[in-house]
Amino acid sequence: MSDLLLKNVRPLGAEATDILIRAGRITGVGGIEAPAGIAVEDGRNAILWPGLIDAHTHLDKTTWGMDWHENEREAVLRGRIDFERENRLEIGIDPHRQSMRHALGLAAHGASHIRSHVDIDTTHGLRLVEGVQETREKLRGIIDIEIVAFPQSGVMVMPGTVELLDEALANGCEVLGGIDPCGIDRDPKGQLDALFALAARHGVGIDIHLHEAGELGAFTMELIFERVRASGMQGRFAISHAFALGMNDHLRVGRLIEQIAELDIAILTTGAPSATVPSVRRLREAGVRVGAGCDGIRDTWGPWGQPDMIDRATIIGMRNGFRSDSDLRLALQIVSQGGADVMRLEGYGLGIGCKADLTLLEGQTVAHAVVNRAPRPLVVKGGRVVARDGHCIVGTP
Amino acid sequence: MSDLLLKNVRPLGAEATDILIRAGRITGVGGIEAPAGIAVEDGRNAILWPGLIDAHTHLDKTTWGMDWHENEREAVLRGRIDFERENRLEIGIDPHRQSMRHALGLAAHGASHIRSHVDIDTTHGLRLVEGVQETREKLRGIIDIEIVAFPQSGVMVMPGTVELLDEALANGCEVLGGIDPCGIDRDPKGQLDALFALAARHGVGIDIHLHEAGELGAFTMELIFERVRASGMQGRFAISHAFALGMNDHLRVGRLIEQIAELDIAILTTGAPSATVPSVRRLREAGVRVGAGCDGIRDTWGPWGQPDMIDRATIIGMRNGFRSDSDLRLALQIVSQGGADVMRLEGYGLGIGCKADLTLLEGQTVAHAVVNRAPRPLVVKGGRVVARDGHCIVGTP
Ligand SMILES: [Zn+2]
Ligand SMILES: [Zn+2]
Repeated sequence: MSDLLLKNVRPLGAEATDILIRAGRITGVGGIEAPAGIAVEDGRNAILWPGLIDAHTHLDKTTWGMDWHENEREAVLRGRIDFERENRLEIGIDPHRQSMRHALGLAAHGASHIRSHVDIDTTHGLRLVEGVQETREKLRGIIDIEIVAFPQSGVMVMPGTVELLDEALANGCEVLGGIDPCGIDRDPKGQLDALFALAARHGVGIDIHLHEAGELGAFTMELIFERVRASGMQGRFAISHAFALGMNDHLRVGRLIEQIAELDIAILTTGAPSATVPSVRRLREAGVRVGAGCDGIRDTWGPWGQPDMIDRATIIGMRNGFRSDSDLRLALQIVSQGGADVMRLEGYGLGIGCKADLTLLEGQTVAHAVVNRAPRPLVVKGGRVVARDGHCIVGTP
Repeated sequence: MSDLLLKNVRPLGAEATDILIRAGRITGVGGIEAPAGIAVEDGRNAILWPGLIDAHTHLDKTTWGMDWHENEREAVLRGRIDFERENRLEIGIDPHRQSMRHALGLAAHGASHIRSHVDIDTTHGLRLVEGVQETREKLRGIIDIEIVAFPQSGVMVMPGTVELLDEALANGCEVLGGIDPCGIDRDPKGQLDALFALAARHGVGIDIHLHEAGELGAFTMELIFERVRASGMQGRFAISHAFALGMNDHLRVGRLIEQIAELDIAILTTGAPSATVPSVRRLREAGVRVGAGCDGIRDTWGPWGQPDMIDRATIIGMRNGFRSDSDLRLALQIVSQGGADVMRLEGYGLGIGCKADLTLLEGQTVAHAVVNRAPRPLVVKGGRVVARDGHCIVGTP
């Protein structure tokens, strides 16, 4: 935990000022003379923003930094899952090496926290989780990683998976994942009952992948609402993707959102360009916690993505039809405060006493900083400079 | 028109070879010894691709390189049009200066040809066209610019516009534009009859903006089909955006596409992330010529966009649900050969005798080159090097 005086920065785009950091927390804001012996950084009038949050990604999957992975496979969800499971190690996607590259890429682009789903299946057991846990240890003080035990291949359809999830939650995974209880698992009651039982036993929250669109996804959401209410999981459940909320039925979606807000369920979006996506503005207006993530980047599923939450903010913004400066500020909030709300991060923000997890953004205004594709001039984690001009200066992938 | 020996490049991603250029055209492919006195460039094993084509943009609109333009206005089409018309010059969007910046940005990213719609309205007359025409002259030999006389504010709803279009076509505009005959002009028969009469008088093609979605856009398309057939404009009509082809009615869209193919109407897409967009693969499979463009970039309409057709290929690819290497190659073809097909460019391609309008792409494979966000190592126009490592080395914005 470090001390640092950050001069000449614009907090959230406001007037330029100085930020004093002591023992990794913000202790002063205003015109500040450098205390003796403290490290000083000149922010050169850049915008100061709290650390960006990738609240939905897959650190164990990327081919980032490897040779190009050719892909001529059909784009069918079940096929993608099975291909990846059976070929990932042979392709060379080492979970530790690749999660290091992915996480350091995010840090270089201003992220301070990651929620990563990590595959758990009967082929690999907990091996992939262990690789990412090794990365988490190595990157302590550079970027925080929360791990979701993610049964990507299915739960009921893959006997033995419940036991592995149980073991993973006993061994340091903070959140329980799930996936398409109808579409992938073919047994919605079975999967959801199993997940809620596991979550209760370990006292963890749930973050489920829900690609199911339209009425199918709405049905699964209703099953989730019933169980959140019955088990007192209000405030501890998250739905990732939630494509059903992008369906073309304003009233039906409104009724789903009402219940999501009432049960304090969080929504994670990636702004998926070719799927029906939830309206982040409508969710925020209903009081729903909304975070965002890069999801998989350049993996066996597909070639898209960058380890950069500003880039993700632009995708979410474009997909949501955002145009105004206020719109762009909302997109940036979704990839920062929004993710912190979902992950319930303590001490997040720019106030006195907050953790000094910060990034500088280059731009005349906040909106400009979202669209201008400039590297982050400086990234600070717990008061320590971890990246400069788009490159990490600590940690080796 | 220049001579150049380009060594060690991979045409369309194939094995590395050399390319000989004489008087601005490709005259040899293969292992070639440098003829005496010829300029030689080492392609360093980069992929060689024909020049990228921005077949739908607006050179007269961008704020690129200016101070950030704040925008808190409502996102209503008619409002955006009227605001821009009444404020563009006061904001400082000088059509010549800004079109220089925009066009040179495209050239720096590997583009060799631009089709630019340029606003013609009763407020500015031909002033905006003249600014872009000045740019076209200055950039001769660097990038080719085709100008569409574009009545953005409407035709029938703005009396005097037909006369201005007539004058513009007599003064060097190569193509006639149009816009939402129902949505903007409130008189589809009026606008379309006027456009077809103007096109016949000047012997030019038509490229109409059609944002109209669903059944409204389908209705306008049918009015267009009737007139293309009646006036013998087959092969000389283009529809930009064509959002109606993105509507959720597979059979209805199929019937529209059949007629588009039969009448050899071209489609221009931007892959608009928050609109219903045509499926480029479905159009190509029906034999339709499909090009693409960046449309407006960072203008009073909205903050998005880059003067980079590779970036546009990624937006189109993501919006079309592309994932495989073949998909990415198609996205790249749309922003290159596809645009050339729409603009009927003579001598386009990498064959012997083709014009040496070329760009190098950085990537292990073609698909990698589409997603890796690397600057273009070298851009060649008519055999002359115009840009290196993402920056133009000729022309001053
Ligand atoms: Zn995911
Ligand atoms: Zn346009």
